[in-house]
Amino acid sequence: MTYCVGLKLDRGLVFASDTRTNAGLDNVATFKKLTVFEKKGERVLVLLSSGNLAVTQAVVSLLTEQMNDPEAKGPTLMTAETMFQAARVVGSAARTVKKIDGEQLEVNAESFLVSFILGGQIKGEEPRIFQVYDAGNFIEASEDTPFLQIGEHKYGKPILDRVTQHDMRLGQAAKLVLLSFDSTLRSNLSVGMPIDLLLYNTDSFTAERQMRIEKDNPYFSQLSELWSEKLRAAVADIPDFEI
Amino acid sequence: MTYCVGLKLDRGLVFASDTRTNAGLDNVATFKKLTVFEKKGERVLVLLSSGNLAVTQAVVSLLTEQMNDPEAKGPTLMTAETMFQAARVVGSAARTVKKIDGEQLEVNAESFLVSFILGGQIKGEEPRIFQVYDAGNFIEASEDTPFLQIGEHKYGKPILDRVTQHDMRLGQAAKLVLLSFDSTLRSNLSVGMPIDLLLYNTDSFTAERQMRIEKDNPYFSQLSELWSEKLRAAVADIPDFEI
Repeated sequence: MTYCVGLKLDRGLVFASDTRTNAGLDNVATFKKLTVFEKKGERVLVLLSSGNLAVTQAVVSLLTEQMNDPEAKGPTLMTAETMFQAARVVGSAARTVKKIDGEQLEVNAESFLVSFILGGQIKGEEPRIFQVYDAGNFIEASEDTPFLQIGEHKYGKPILDRVTQHDMRLGQAAKLVLLSFDSTLRSNLSVGMPIDLLLYNTDSFTAERQMRIEKDNPYFSQLSELWSEKLRAAVADIPDFEI
Repeated sequence: MTYCVGLKLDRGLVFASDTRTNAGLDNVATFKKLTVFEKKGERVLVLLSSGNLAVTQAVVSLLTEQMNDPEAKGPTLMTAETMFQAARVVGSAARTVKKIDGEQLEVNAESFLVSFILGGQIKGEEPRIFQVYDAGNFIEASEDTPFLQIGEHKYGKPILDRVTQHDMRLGQAAKLVLLSFDSTLRSNLSVGMPIDLLLYNTDSFTAERQMRIEKDNPYFSQLSELWSEKLRAAVADIPDFEI
């Protein structure tokens, strides 16, 4: 399993993903699921991936090869003129991998299930963020639903639902996303530290605000405890329910 | 889907269940999923059920028929001497229904998946609470994990994880359970109001503290808004995360 979140706010975008992959419970490893495609000053695209690791890695490799191939037909992530076109490029890469590997995966009763969050900004457009399905089609986050989640999304959804506001500062949103991760990490063993986090400021056209949050990160290790305290205080503040 | 919770606290037990059943998205109905078996002054047993409604209703009917059958072999919910024996009775009823209906359900590619929470107190014992699986086996809540959930448990788990404490008053625990329901109701359409709630005080041997919380219940309708406010304030109280 995996947990990835992308937020679209007035001031920019926030991306976060865990790094755990597992085949069963006894084969656990750390893999980066957040990939940046950047051309400083012109475009930043961030891809988060969830699902069968062989498939998601193949998709990322294919996208990278296309970018570096001077004879590539059609747009690549470096030449797409809009984020909509870029989402098409990702969807089409997913379809290509499915065509190559899908049948054998099915024969082995393995799942092709993958999904992606693609967000970023290309000069001339506002920042946008999409969720791309394994069929290659996709949806875009809007003001009504400013966040997208893939993987194990349920435990961390209530806090995002209630607190996300489109006018948050990115540092506030980062905190909120980490709280959402903390709830998920507590409940699902297949979601694990470290967490990759990237904050993108609108019109900055750089991916420099990114970092990996390790298990011993002092902010994160205090967050969980502090949050439990605050939650208990908040619950205590509400009148009890008596019958 | 369904959402049911049972809590085992120092002062007693708390039970809650939603009432929505659905076959697809366009066939929705209200059914009680909380059943009380009571002999005032001697025993109170509460059964919460989740899964295929035909199966769970058959199990409840079977349990009731056994109780009323003077020639029933083996213990019934009214004669079981311990809660452990009572959990066996429920498990055995689930097995009986599976024997009768399981094969045809499988033929029709329908699922036999059901699960139950059975809690209560029989004179001579402390209150106990069990989760009974469709195979008829069961686990018991302990101090380490004082709550059991069946059905759509993920959205409402983080708040229970962090705030439940074994020395809570029942009215506090009821509030907490309603917060857990509120998070679930927001996120899963197949969980719906009204909510059946029952508070059981240790050694009371009566099920009189029960009520149905309708959509227009003034406490519940304020709860959600108040909780969003408190959560936002709690998040604001934590330092932002900057990169």
